[in-house]
Amino acid sequence: MTAPAQALLDPRRIALIGASADAGRLTARPQRYLRRHGFSGTLFPVNPRAVEVLGEHAYASLDEIPGEIDFAYILLGTEQVEAQVAACAARGIPLACVLADGFAEAGPEGAARQARVVAAARAGGMRLLGPNSMGVVNLRARTALSTNAALEAESLPAGRVALVSQSGSMMGALLSRGAARGLGFSHLIGTGNEADLTAGEVASVLLDDPDVDVVCLFLEALRAPQQLAAAARKAHRLGKPIVALKLGRSPFGAELATSHTGALAGSDAAADAFFAAHGILRVTMLEALLELPLLVAGRRPPAQRHRAVGVMTTTGGGGALAVDALGVLGIEARRPDAAAAALLDARALPHHGRLLDMTLAGTRPDRVMAALAGLRAAQDTDLVLAVVGSSAQFRPEDAVGGIIAGAAIPGKPVAAFLAPQAEASLRLLAEAGIAAFRTPEGAADAIRAYCAWQAPAETLPAETLAIPVPSAPDEADARALFAALGLPSDAVVMQGEAPPGLRYPVALKILSPDLAHKTEVGGVALRIGDAPSLVREAAAMRARVAAAAPRARITGLVVQPMAAGLAEAILGFRRDPEVGPVVLLGAGGVMAELHRDVTLRLAPVDLATARAMIGEVRGLKPLGGWRNLPRGDLDALARAIVAFSRLAALGGIAEAEINPLIIGREGEGVIVADAWLVPA
Amino acid sequence: MTAPAQALLDPRRIALIGASADAGRLTARPQRYLRRHGFSGTLFPVNPRAVEVLGEHAYASLDEIPGEIDFAYILLGTEQVEAQVAACAARGIPLACVLADGFAEAGPEGAARQARVVAAARAGGMRLLGPNSMGVVNLRARTALSTNAALEAESLPAGRVALVSQSGSMMGALLSRGAARGLGFSHLIGTGNEADLTAGEVASVLLDDPDVDVVCLFLEALRAPQQLAAAARKAHRLGKPIVALKLGRSPFGAELATSHTGALAGSDAAADAFFAAHGILRVTMLEALLELPLLVAGRRPPAQRHRAVGVMTTTGGGGALAVDALGVLGIEARRPDAAAAALLDARALPHHGRLLDMTLAGTRPDRVMAALAGLRAAQDTDLVLAVVGSSAQFRPEDAVGGIIAGAAIPGKPVAAFLAPQAEASLRLLAEAGIAAFRTPEGAADAIRAYCAWQAPAETLPAETLAIPVPSAPDEADARALFAALGLPSDAVVMQGEAPPGLRYPVALKILSPDLAHKTEVGGVALRIGDAPSLVREAAAMRARVAAAAPRARITGLVVQPMAAGLAEAILGFRRDPEVGPVVLLGAGGVMAELHRDVTLRLAPVDLATARAMIGEVRGLKPLGGWRNLPRGDLDALARAIVAFSRLAALGGIAEAEINPLIIGREGEGVIVADAWLVPA
Repeated sequence: MTAPAQALLDPRRIALIGASADAGRLTARPQRYLRRHGFSGTLFPVNPRAVEVLGEHAYASLDEIPGEIDFAYILLGTEQVEAQVAACAARGIPLACVLADGFAEAGPEGAARQARVVAAARAGGMRLLGPNSMGVVNLRARTALSTNAALEAESLPAGRVALVSQSGSMMGALLSRGAARGLGFSHLIGTGNEADLTAGEVASVLLDDPDVDVVCLFLEALRAPQQLAAAARKAHRLGKPIVALKLGRSPFGAELATSHTGALAGSDAAADAFFAAHGILRVTMLEALLELPLLVAGRRPPAQRHRAVGVMTTTGGGGALAVDALGVLGIEARRPDAAAAALLDARALPHHGRLLDMTLAGTRPDRVMAALAGLRAAQDTDLVLAVVGSSAQFRPEDAVGGIIAGAAIPGKPVAAFLAPQAEASLRLLAEAGIAAFRTPEGAADAIRAYCAWQAPAETLPAETLAIPVPSAPDEADARALFAALGLPSDAVVMQGEAPPGLRYPVALKILSPDLAHKTEVGGVALRIGDAPSLVREAAAMRARVAAAAPRARITGLVVQPMAAGLAEAILGFRRDPEVGPVVLLGAGGVMAELHRDVTLRLAPVDLATARAMIGEVRGLKPLGGWRNLPRGDLDALARAIVAFSRLAALGGIAEAEINPLIIGREGEGVIVADAWLVPA
Repeated sequence: MTAPAQALLDPRRIALIGASADAGRLTARPQRYLRRHGFSGTLFPVNPRAVEVLGEHAYASLDEIPGEIDFAYILLGTEQVEAQVAACAARGIPLACVLADGFAEAGPEGAARQARVVAAARAGGMRLLGPNSMGVVNLRARTALSTNAALEAESLPAGRVALVSQSGSMMGALLSRGAARGLGFSHLIGTGNEADLTAGEVASVLLDDPDVDVVCLFLEALRAPQQLAAAARKAHRLGKPIVALKLGRSPFGAELATSHTGALAGSDAAADAFFAAHGILRVTMLEALLELPLLVAGRRPPAQRHRAVGVMTTTGGGGALAVDALGVLGIEARRPDAAAAALLDARALPHHGRLLDMTLAGTRPDRVMAALAGLRAAQDTDLVLAVVGSSAQFRPEDAVGGIIAGAAIPGKPVAAFLAPQAEASLRLLAEAGIAAFRTPEGAADAIRAYCAWQAPAETLPAETLAIPVPSAPDEADARALFAALGLPSDAVVMQGEAPPGLRYPVALKILSPDLAHKTEVGGVALRIGDAPSLVREAAAMRARVAAAAPRARITGLVVQPMAAGLAEAILGFRRDPEVGPVVLLGAGGVMAELHRDVTLRLAPVDLATARAMIGEVRGLKPLGGWRNLPRGDLDALARAIVAFSRLAALGGIAEAEINPLIIGREGEGVIVADAWLVPA
């Protein structure tokens, strides 16, 4: 392990630069909290205006500190940060953390300041956490190196779940919420602006810690997707899942995440595609981020996914509430299959529906264990949810004892939802390492994430494509480029003469790198019946367009046989500012636009992924033979998606679109009816 | 107030029929709980096998009890209920409550048993709560007349929110969850199977209690919608809002609610329409049912709705989380308008985005009050949300003092979301009557419900239509009926001769009450150009259909000029088993079906509602002039919806459909292209 990684996980000799001698000040907190929670290493408060700081010897400057320092927490104001970072780097400290804000999140001046700070760190080979970082907490080592007020708590439980948070305040909020339920953390690390160390890198370091089973991320933005992707692959290799909550699901939230952290906004669909492709479990609810980790600790993505669960309950209403919340997210509570039913029958546990109602059987541990064993044996579910009623409130050992004993037997995951207020039961379950949910909606959100969990996608072999990208491409250039990727078009360029061998009728369009909307300038003509008409129309079109758009460069005309096909699709490509190249498939036409009927993946994709995408676009469903409608050439469509997604390898392309892509009947292929390209 | 209503709200002389002398038994609980919580009335335990029950004199039978009894809680087993109900009714007790299950929820035999029990009660003029009822709790009078284990708690806070719950276990779960946060109830009443008294009637009684400000409903099914609608109108009149959580949002949940309670399943869209039409606030999250009431207590639906809020925060991450959760539900966190900005500027509160960030201003009460006053002054928001960070955990008075003082000033509602674990702050806010949320998602769910809240719709004058409904209607009968309602069609019936005055080309269809799918038996012919062809085709069609479907009754043929129009719609009508007549509008064609692009209202509707429906169907958006597409005759469509919705007044109709309804250009009207009717 590198020195910065070691310092990040378990700092032992810490300089607190700017530690206040006034115990009421924010900058006195790290020292207070470190002492309160029993830090066993060495502290060096640095404060030129004090001999003692909170009863400990103070150092006037970094130079006076004897021996090695492995972590410097810079608590000074924004203006003083750069000099202190430089001093730390010069001293050979492997890792510094900056509390102050006023950097990239605060506009161009702050961004320039941030760049100088990073440069100062790099000059000395030092790594940097923050700025705008809430520091580092290691609860196993009792190292509370943070200004977060949540550390005012008298004691904090330690666990095997690490948290990386871009938001300092949510780091504290999650710590306090977990502590109230016995859900402890191993580490909590605030990455703030991520000027240097990113969430992905920090996650990767945490995965190396034998005391960490799961890494949770609270993200406002995705800043270094490749580093996070690498951490996700490592996580999968080590069997240590990553669970993420990311802001920006709504446009308003995305905007805020931006202004708040200085990151670029990305579309949430792209973020979803990123998490899915890399095997990161994404939750949407705050408490699910706390509650899901125990469900996945020590587990890998299930080999088969059923989007279904078995449910047992001691409360009819509570069970129905959970089943309903799951159903809204598309997860079915399934009645016991033959394997499960046989086991339940053998133990005389009556079952006749989606809920195994234990109201009569009661919560006696052997009965609950038999019920769990039965439901876990079902071959068509992903996990078993136990819903507990009022017994969870007043007889916690009785209520959850059977669940704890049953879940201890290896097998399908077991989770619990407690209908009443039931702190003691929640705590018992947490101590036993069983995921327990306070709300039916949190349970449903986490279970949805579990049921969607897949291993990181195989990385496609990196291509190096040597295809030149024109600086001002017209439609013919776009078509030529797509053809080079494996998606040919039947259009030809003409200048004066009618191209030989055309199948009439044809469509004619003006070619220009400057005209995005050809129809409006008279640059499109349809259903031209023969060569003489084509030549006439070409001349007329040149004249029309020259008159309508005198400044547009006309690079020729493009001719293409008229085609109807069965349906139209849209293929899109862009480089998302957060996650990089993505490919989009949508149904064509106005209705598809109205219904936002699109799906999206990280690009490039393979054939299997392309087929999965086709299955997700509702408007393409008729092409699969729905209601005896004629089948479309979905194989050709899948190949077209794969070819188009190879644009990812061409750094010179920022955006591209085929709209429409005409889909023929089975065996007829697809036709590029319009093509469009934006160089980077 | 009637005697049963008085007994429901505040029972004073209670018979516990079947009270157990064994304190550990379920049937001993009501007596234990009544005594524990300080019931001040008179108890009569009835138990023929004991002289004393839990230290109190026991009565061998109802007959031995001296004086009046106002409430009998029947705790005996299923088989003994009927006789005891009869005895109570004979004795003149105004209200009895039945704990036992095994009635309508348990199949046909149970349903018959339930009917006998209801008949026995009615014979003596007695009202009945249950069966399968968890009883009645009045926390203001300290009357804990229930078997619910949540009453094991040492003490329970009393509040001004009443709860009516079909589920007994959720009644306890909500009581315990509220108690943990200082959210007290006035009453909790379990309605169980609602064999007699329904949630609507119970709500209506509760509204009369001066100690009740808000009525909450936990519903598994809507059983007597007219009674609930009447309660909702009364609630609006009295300014006492009703908040509901209803199961059945997913098909699985609906199925469970059914098997669980013996009610018929209804579609959730119909339930949504019902709640909206009657001004009932519907939440979807369990905790929002607890958290929303304080937001609406003493309020009426806002005159204007903006679907927007003002947000102030002391935590950037927590504020962004709330804004994101709101945005996902379509509620915008809006930056201060001119009015708000002026007030904020006057107090030097910097604002430059969707979040009024108080991180620097701090939580000093005068600053927070100024911030709230500023945000509340905005003219384009519905309420103000205050998000509080770590101070809520360790300095509750500081953290929420300003919010409490600010919210006490009359004006727009103020709500709070607390990011950390912060019981004391939650409790302070609850005591001050301010809605406080534990999770951003609960806050968003409740605020969405508030922003959608409308006064109960004006009830349209009840129609009595004297239109005969044929027992086996064919398409011509359906067309004739729709025409009588004000939606004429241009189709005519023919038998042998071509009808005079037709505009050719025409479409020809076979008429039969027995043929749902005419195309499949050769019963549809399109684009017939003249009268001779029509006569020929009519004869051929009769022969074809007779051969293909020899048993179908042929009642003639229907002819209609071919029409294209701009677009197609679907108009549907049905009697929902829960909420009664509903009218549905959807875009036409395959895409609309794939996208479930429909909207639904209780029928009948007025023109304004019909126009609102048109605005909600995405696929009809192009007809409104979107992207310069030609406008459709949306006025005619709105009139058609109104006319069609009048089917509600014809009890003889179970279902009806016009599919497609062809929508012409502006001024061209709409055309009924196919019509279909199912008698009740």
